[in-house]
Amino acid sequence: MTQHAPDVTPELFWDTMTAFQRSAALKAAVDLEIFTKIGEGNSTAAEIASAASAAERGVRILCDTLTVMGFLTKTGSTYALTDASAAFMDKRSQMYIGSAVDFIMGPQQRRGFDDLTNAVKNGGSSVTGEASMDPESEMWVEFARSMAPLMFPTAQAVAEHIGFGADRELKVLDIAAGHGIYGIMVGKRYPNAQIYGADWNKVLTVAKENAEKFGIADRYHTIAGDAFESDFSTGYDVILVPNFLHHFDAPTCEKFLRKVNGALADGGKVLTVEFVPNDDRVSPPPSAMFSLVMLAATPGGDAYTYPELRQMFENAGFANNEIIELHPMPQHLIVSTR
Amino acid sequence: MTQHAPDVTPELFWDTMTAFQRSAALKAAVDLEIFTKIGEGNSTAAEIASAASAAERGVRILCDTLTVMGFLTKTGSTYALTDASAAFMDKRSQMYIGSAVDFIMGPQQRRGFDDLTNAVKNGGSSVTGEASMDPESEMWVEFARSMAPLMFPTAQAVAEHIGFGADRELKVLDIAAGHGIYGIMVGKRYPNAQIYGADWNKVLTVAKENAEKFGIADRYHTIAGDAFESDFSTGYDVILVPNFLHHFDAPTCEKFLRKVNGALADGGKVLTVEFVPNDDRVSPPPSAMFSLVMLAATPGGDAYTYPELRQMFENAGFANNEIIELHPMPQHLIVSTR
Repeated sequence: MTQHAPDVTPELFWDTMTAFQRSAALKAAVDLEIFTKIGEGNSTAAEIASAASAAERGVRILCDTLTVMGFLTKTGSTYALTDASAAFMDKRSQMYIGSAVDFIMGPQQRRGFDDLTNAVKNGGSSVTGEASMDPESEMWVEFARSMAPLMFPTAQAVAEHIGFGADRELKVLDIAAGHGIYGIMVGKRYPNAQIYGADWNKVLTVAKENAEKFGIADRYHTIAGDAFESDFSTGYDVILVPNFLHHFDAPTCEKFLRKVNGALADGGKVLTVEFVPNDDRVSPPPSAMFSLVMLAATPGGDAYTYPELRQMFENAGFANNEIIELHPMPQHLIVSTR
Repeated sequence: MTQHAPDVTPELFWDTMTAFQRSAALKAAVDLEIFTKIGEGNSTAAEIASAASAAERGVRILCDTLTVMGFLTKTGSTYALTDASAAFMDKRSQMYIGSAVDFIMGPQQRRGFDDLTNAVKNGGSSVTGEASMDPESEMWVEFARSMAPLMFPTAQAVAEHIGFGADRELKVLDIAAGHGIYGIMVGKRYPNAQIYGADWNKVLTVAKENAEKFGIADRYHTIAGDAFESDFSTGYDVILVPNFLHHFDAPTCEKFLRKVNGALADGGKVLTVEFVPNDDRVSPPPSAMFSLVMLAATPGGDAYTYPELRQMFENAGFANNEIIELHPMPQHLIVSTR
């Protein structure tokens, strides 16, 4: 039974099978604001437990786990934040992104992954697909609220790639705006831009809150309704399609891009943000793994390769397409013109 | 928002938050016997899908994910097993351990981790604790059936450390035998040993099946009942306590070890298998992380350090204790005598 070569070990199997435990530990730490409590100066399990209204035994085991996972350091019996945890996991930091667990590990997403075997069998999700297309679903409100902080760096990078003169008057459409951050970052960079956020009515509440927060509420307009059905109007200099296409199959994407083309002004640009794996579909890891998220969460979505995306754009009347890395963020930007 | 040093990235946060997706992908692959189908010669997504009665799109995305995770290789559009996957994940291999997902990712375990925030708050699990102590629970039957293959190397290593003469007549007690593998491996190594497996009646069915399978059924006896309540009888030369103590708090362990002491013959040895973290409690990773499993799954269990375990044994009348690494397996063996 142990005759296998010493370098063939079940370690990867064990690590992967128990990986869900790591996600759960991180979620518990975010839920209980453990990182924030440590950032505030609590350093022993007893102090952190008292600040977090939790049991010392529970906090000791959780903080040891967080140390093993690389989120904390431990010296004697005192815990401290790593630089990354101080930047991203302490609620008092401007870069706090802990709220993303509420969506990424939320009930809808989890249900899709709990049912992954059936999604593989059927070629798509049957449990989350409908929820993700329900205009009254709380899912995208949750998404909008919890994911906004994680989107900032990407949204800023996208705004920097628009390439129009800084003072130009721009009419900007942000499709499935959600948290609104992509359009809002364009609004921040282009003081004479008018931003139109299109999304379901419920979700636009969050976009409007964010527009207010970033001081561009007077230039922020909303178009409520289903992105496939609602009237976008026309004459947009910039149309943002951030993290939208991957939810749909290729024919649906193409049809949608024709609608986008019809809304674009002469000389206008479409800026699409996507997880784009290489043609081998197994690199780089974050983009390649994103296909699985779409398998678990949608009936027919995918992480498309650049040739696949370019074909969709060409079929929809965009002759010129350019792909831009947004390193260190995992997503790519595709800039398309007619 | 992007003013942080370039080496401070949210990568660890992202990887950990999405780690549960990796577990789900592996479980789907085991459920659908993807590794076995590839081992049998199916290599494209279409071939594997047909063999596994699943959708090609689902299988393509799953196999790409398994490639990213390191379980498969991909050349063009054909997939192949790695050496480790061929050894451990193909059902036709003698070393197949894929069934472990049925317990490690089973409903009881998952429920504990879904409720981890409350377990940290309360200092112990309230959702799985009772199930794990219910004699009629299917949980330990599932454990016994699914975890046996993963236990072979450890059980063989333990048998090798008993250190009595090969022909000696031994009376061996295997506590909470479950799958029975620990006792059975001793029975295989000591042809004149009589093995007594103690566990709940339902679970002993699995131990008896395994004793039959390994050809020692004529020397395999069972003691049905709760390990804390049932009469073990006395005069054992070897008492095995494999992966048992971590479910309980220290006073309960001590009380139990006194009972074990009472069942041991003069010159007898107690062999205990445990995940034993170093005194810092944050290394090595597999043992240190095991505390979290006990927090999620039990009201008061833990991964105890060696000083903690030694103290329990000394208090229970075992003056001599020795700890032995079972490398490359993560567990330790503790050999105790009076």
